[in-house]
Amino acid sequence: MEIGIVGLGLIGGSLGFDLRTLGHTVKGVSRQPETGDQAIAMGIVDHASIHLSLLKDTEVIFLCTPIAAIVPTVQQLIPYLQPDTILTDVGSVKEPIVEAISPLWKQFIGGHPMAGKTTDGISAATPGLFANRPYVLTPVDNTSPQALARVEKLVHSLNARLYHCSPSNHDRSVAWISHLPVIVSASLIAACLEEDNTTVKQISQQLSSSGFRDTSRVGGGNPELGTMMAQYNQSCLLRSLHQYRQTLDRFIDQIEQSHWDKLAQELQKTQKERPRYLKED
Amino acid sequence: MEIGIVGLGLIGGSLGFDLRTLGHTVKGVSRQPETGDQAIAMGIVDHASIHLSLLKDTEVIFLCTPIAAIVPTVQQLIPYLQPDTILTDVGSVKEPIVEAISPLWKQFIGGHPMAGKTTDGISAATPGLFANRPYVLTPVDNTSPQALARVEKLVHSLNARLYHCSPSNHDRSVAWISHLPVIVSASLIAACLEEDNTTVKQISQQLSSSGFRDTSRVGGGNPELGTMMAQYNQSCLLRSLHQYRQTLDRFIDQIEQSHWDKLAQELQKTQKERPRYLKED
Repeated sequence: MEIGIVGLGLIGGSLGFDLRTLGHTVKGVSRQPETGDQAIAMGIVDHASIHLSLLKDTEVIFLCTPIAAIVPTVQQLIPYLQPDTILTDVGSVKEPIVEAISPLWKQFIGGHPMAGKTTDGISAATPGLFANRPYVLTPVDNTSPQALARVEKLVHSLNARLYHCSPSNHDRSVAWISHLPVIVSASLIAACLEEDNTTVKQISQQLSSSGFRDTSRVGGGNPELGTMMAQYNQSCLLRSLHQYRQTLDRFIDQIEQSHWDKLAQELQKTQKERPRYLKED
Repeated sequence: MEIGIVGLGLIGGSLGFDLRTLGHTVKGVSRQPETGDQAIAMGIVDHASIHLSLLKDTEVIFLCTPIAAIVPTVQQLIPYLQPDTILTDVGSVKEPIVEAISPLWKQFIGGHPMAGKTTDGISAATPGLFANRPYVLTPVDNTSPQALARVEKLVHSLNARLYHCSPSNHDRSVAWISHLPVIVSASLIAACLEEDNTTVKQISQQLSSSGFRDTSRVGGGNPELGTMMAQYNQSCLLRSLHQYRQTLDRFIDQIEQSHWDKLAQELQKTQKERPRYLKED
């Protein structure tokens, strides 16, 4: 199959690796010509360009730009598309994107591969990035079943774990397990930095270990991505943040009141329930 | 050297492995005789007993029980000790322990090896657990310099990164980087469990990935340990929690007010400053 990828970063690049390995011809479009050259050199794409016209004969196009560029990219792509070309995006928020693109292009399926790394950009692209990772598709009422079936087949071929849900349920869910953790984790780092006793601050930096490293990881990640998530999933994220604050206050209250039995019960519950959120292992 | 270990869990067991490899004779005391048998079978100790009298000829004794048992263990140990036997504990809170033991035993050095695993108990004991990890000693004004020097030498021989600080600075520091993360992380899990839309809850469990896994890890850990930390480091933890809540409110406010530039600046700062807390890599 002829497959197009717009945006050759971590996700676009990793898709290119796998799709070429599967025997597809991959054409990649990036803003910088150097990225295209690197993609060819790395074996990520067969052809590269900075012009969307490169994709005119492709059957399926993955939109892998930053969230803010997805809808404008579709608007610029449309003049080059065959009527049955399928578009699918990889944005981490779905409702605003699906709502904006559905009226523009009938053969569109919202998608979100839940795969990431601490590094980004094309140099971080990795074969097999999607294997055993969730890949959500968010078809809506007017989604073409044929187009959906073709994207599903591609997702399966990446060995990803395919899930379907509505765009709004997707956004509420990722607010909990992806976007809330970023703010929770960033607030942890920011709070530690507020320590005004320089000795204590220095010792805490020397002593911090795997617990701090893991809890702070996503809060120390890509700032543009974090801001974009908050911006595009604002209402769902705020809903989760307000619940989180209420829950945190409950813990603070238990500690202030020395209600150790209650605190122990809470921690037993979080220990018991956490594995439900760890399907992948 | 003849070395005693009271409490053969993850930390006590791992110490036994390394100290025997270094050529010391290790005697271990556990509450359950089966634990001692297992410690001998695993090569963690040379001799094991459920009676503290086993340790009467040892030169240095590591107190590796849960925090609540450290002071009572010292009280029971004293009748068996030689006057120059050195005691050192591995509790994750130092001020209450050092204050309680210093009047009881002159040759005591508070200690805290910052090494952990998700699993605990003797089966989780691992050779080399302390290598390249922080190991804090908290000598006070009346600490014997000779005793300190002997414990320092042992810590160095574990290839740990040795730090010194006062018990109170230790407790304030670990509140930030060890105890606060537990509550922040447990609140994340507990908040996610509050989602009342069962479809959204189920999808969030299916989609959660490495970001959630890492941010929730310490909040899904040993409930007894978490409760004990909060109990023994209550005032320092509350100090950190109140600052955290204030910082979280700032993030919530920025998201509510759509102050994306300010949020981006905060996230740039957390990305930039986080590596200061990751000395170990």
